[in-house]
Amino acid sequence: MRVITLTTDFGAADWFVGTMRGVILSIHPRVQIVDITHGVRAGDVRAAAFTVAASCRFFPENTIHVAVVDPGVGSPRTAIAVQTENYVFVGPDNGVLSLALARERIKAIFQIRNPLLFLHPVSQTFHGRDVFAPVAAHLSKGLPLQKLGPRVRDFVRLDWPKPKISEGVMVGKIIYLDNFGNAITNISGLSLREFGSERCQVSVKRKPICRIGSFYQAVPIGKPVAVPGSSGFLEIAVNCGLAAKVFRLKVGDTVTVRWKSRQ
Amino acid sequence: MRVITLTTDFGAADWFVGTMRGVILSIHPRVQIVDITHGVRAGDVRAAAFTVAASCRFFPENTIHVAVVDPGVGSPRTAIAVQTENYVFVGPDNGVLSLALARERIKAIFQIRNPLLFLHPVSQTFHGRDVFAPVAAHLSKGLPLQKLGPRVRDFVRLDWPKPKISEGVMVGKIIYLDNFGNAITNISGLSLREFGSERCQVSVKRKPICRIGSFYQAVPIGKPVAVPGSSGFLEIAVNCGLAAKVFRLKVGDTVTVRWKSRQ
Amino acid sequence: MRVITLTTDFGAADWFVGTMRGVILSIHPRVQIVDITHGVRAGDVRAAAFTVAASCRFFPENTIHVAVVDPGVGSPRTAIAVQTENYVFVGPDNGVLSLALARERIKAIFQIRNPLLFLHPVSQTFHGRDVFAPVAAHLSKGLPLQKLGPRVRDFVRLDWPKPKISEGVMVGKIIYLDNFGNAITNISGLSLREFGSERCQVSVKRKPICRIGSFYQAVPIGKPVAVPGSSGFLEIAVNCGLAAKVFRLKVGDTVTVRWKSRQ
Repeated sequence: MRVITLTTDFGAADWFVGTMRGVILSIHPRVQIVDITHGVRAGDVRAAAFTVAASCRFFPENTIHVAVVDPGVGSPRTAIAVQTENYVFVGPDNGVLSLALARERIKAIFQIRNPLLFLHPVSQTFHGRDVFAPVAAHLSKGLPLQKLGPRVRDFVRLDWPKPKISEGVMVGKIIYLDNFGNAITNISGLSLREFGSERCQVSVKRKPICRIGSFYQAVPIGKPVAVPGSSGFLEIAVNCGLAAKVFRLKVGDTVTVRWKSRQ
Repeated sequence: MRVITLTTDFGAADWFVGTMRGVILSIHPRVQIVDITHGVRAGDVRAAAFTVAASCRFFPENTIHVAVVDPGVGSPRTAIAVQTENYVFVGPDNGVLSLALARERIKAIFQIRNPLLFLHPVSQTFHGRDVFAPVAAHLSKGLPLQKLGPRVRDFVRLDWPKPKISEGVMVGKIIYLDNFGNAITNISGLSLREFGSERCQVSVKRKPICRIGSFYQAVPIGKPVAVPGSSGFLEIAVNCGLAAKVFRLKVGDTVTVRWKSRQ
Repeated sequence: MRVITLTTDFGAADWFVGTMRGVILSIHPRVQIVDITHGVRAGDVRAAAFTVAASCRFFPENTIHVAVVDPGVGSPRTAIAVQTENYVFVGPDNGVLSLALARERIKAIFQIRNPLLFLHPVSQTFHGRDVFAPVAAHLSKGLPLQKLGPRVRDFVRLDWPKPKISEGVMVGKIIYLDNFGNAITNISGLSLREFGSERCQVSVKRKPICRIGSFYQAVPIGKPVAVPGSSGFLEIAVNCGLAAKVFRLKVGDTVTVRWKSRQ
């Protein structure tokens, strides 16, 4: 059974997500639809990009990953479908797919332009229902990507910050705040391991906050700890607390990991 | 595979929706259950009615649409199942189905009274679990609606405001505020098109707010625009903002669309 | 078709739940996954325990109930799978399963230790994805519980308050606040029935609040009423209002039911 995943900022209060499911099931009744989340902050393309990147590789081969965080809906922005070695990615060409695609082996990119596949009249405010849902449903039934529209050579990439590594110091940024108040950075857990994480001091905006531990309860309740998180990146947490709130952490804040003997 | 949709005010924090799914799957393991939303404001029958009406027609034929926003649960209010040309609608007879039914061709209406179909003991506070879930499951397996209870002639309708159209002016109301802070009115997009929307001024409570555009980014970021929305009605939005918050819009507020040359 | 239920505190905003679904479907594509809720307050093992207990028995036989509210993830706490007469329960051994298990006939308890079943590398912060999801998926395919790890004799139980009954008075506690602002107590509806509920006065922290009715609209809008709730316990509600907010009710507050003629 083919799987379609949905990542949107449509929220849970209205009929938007349910309606997309109705459209998909009307075209392909036997597909598995999985919600990654519909709780992306409205219009937050970067958070959605991180969400798709953090989750996509845990799905069966040939899964169709649909991401609709699309403040430009109705404007002349284009929409794309990307065939990679393992998956198909579908969404507006605004960068929302780009972080996931950075780790995938891309085979072909197509613009989504074929009006025969859309629901008509196509609303100018809800392409999730009228464009992306029917396209994903048709792809899940085996429609070749060439039928979507012209093949193109590239897609929009987000300007994603990369950490800077120098002797004894790594400087990165907070890139995502999760439901537990954990602040996920762009500093990879692997790079930390080489670095020798036990003796590190972690600071945010130059203020020392905590050491690195291997799990949340490595520190007493209410205390901060930086852990190599499940998405592959260092994250700053408070055991049974909300680090983002306690330390007023924001996406974009600078995070410094310093090897202690050099401090 | 038969589809059952669920629209409720049960929220996502408790076990209510999951339990309904358990009851349905215990009776009919191979049915597709789709959540429209469980985030209707507690007891807000009108918002739920709009939700069902906005989503129902995007589902496969024979879908069973269940709506349980039911502040009168346990009281002597009745429950109904309505066979229309395309669908079956199930819920308390408090108007929650009435807006969707207004656009459907109704074939028969039955009261839900047959205790053999219910979970016992029937709680007086959770008919979603004990009445509506098992009834929907049995219907999805092919139970004829006549088995539910006596056929009746009518159902409760909500007093839904209709817009007033006079020369050069349309006066309607806000009927729904969505997750994006957009205020959906009862002024249909079709009527606007005949009206000649480009030269219109949109006011709320007599205060001019914006013009009509065809998509959200037709105006700069942070600016208001009224767009013919995906549910078929004019909605007032702010590009990348929350119109409902910025302009303190409420359900019931009067919206005026005025053809500019006559102003 | 086998059913897996999920109860977590992962929230709806991130990719955590979707990722668990991806892992499960990668191992067993034809299983039915049902969300009980992912809105348990972060780390609130007691609320999760109540949630599992209130919902589990409404599912088909052989359903696998997975509960991951797990503030000790990564620490040396163990994980268990419990075979009961009707179901399998899977989760950390921190009491989250214990309230449901108190009502089930337990056949065998196993620790979850077999690394061959896990996703590698096993993160120290997301066993939902790397341990519980793959274990549940393998069990749903028929893996015998003995393959998980050593059989053990017991599991962690929560210290759950029991109501005290004396002549004409029952003294219990609030144990859960739901989405409707209803305060669910540990006083069972059955015990009330024997007690003769019509003439009872219900007090919270010694302050009289309301009488007992059989449904929410047994009192005028805005008025309080205590009803025998759908989870089997007395709950304090306000008709079309939020009792928890109006009366500032908290989990742990003492609730007294007094037979009126003795007052």
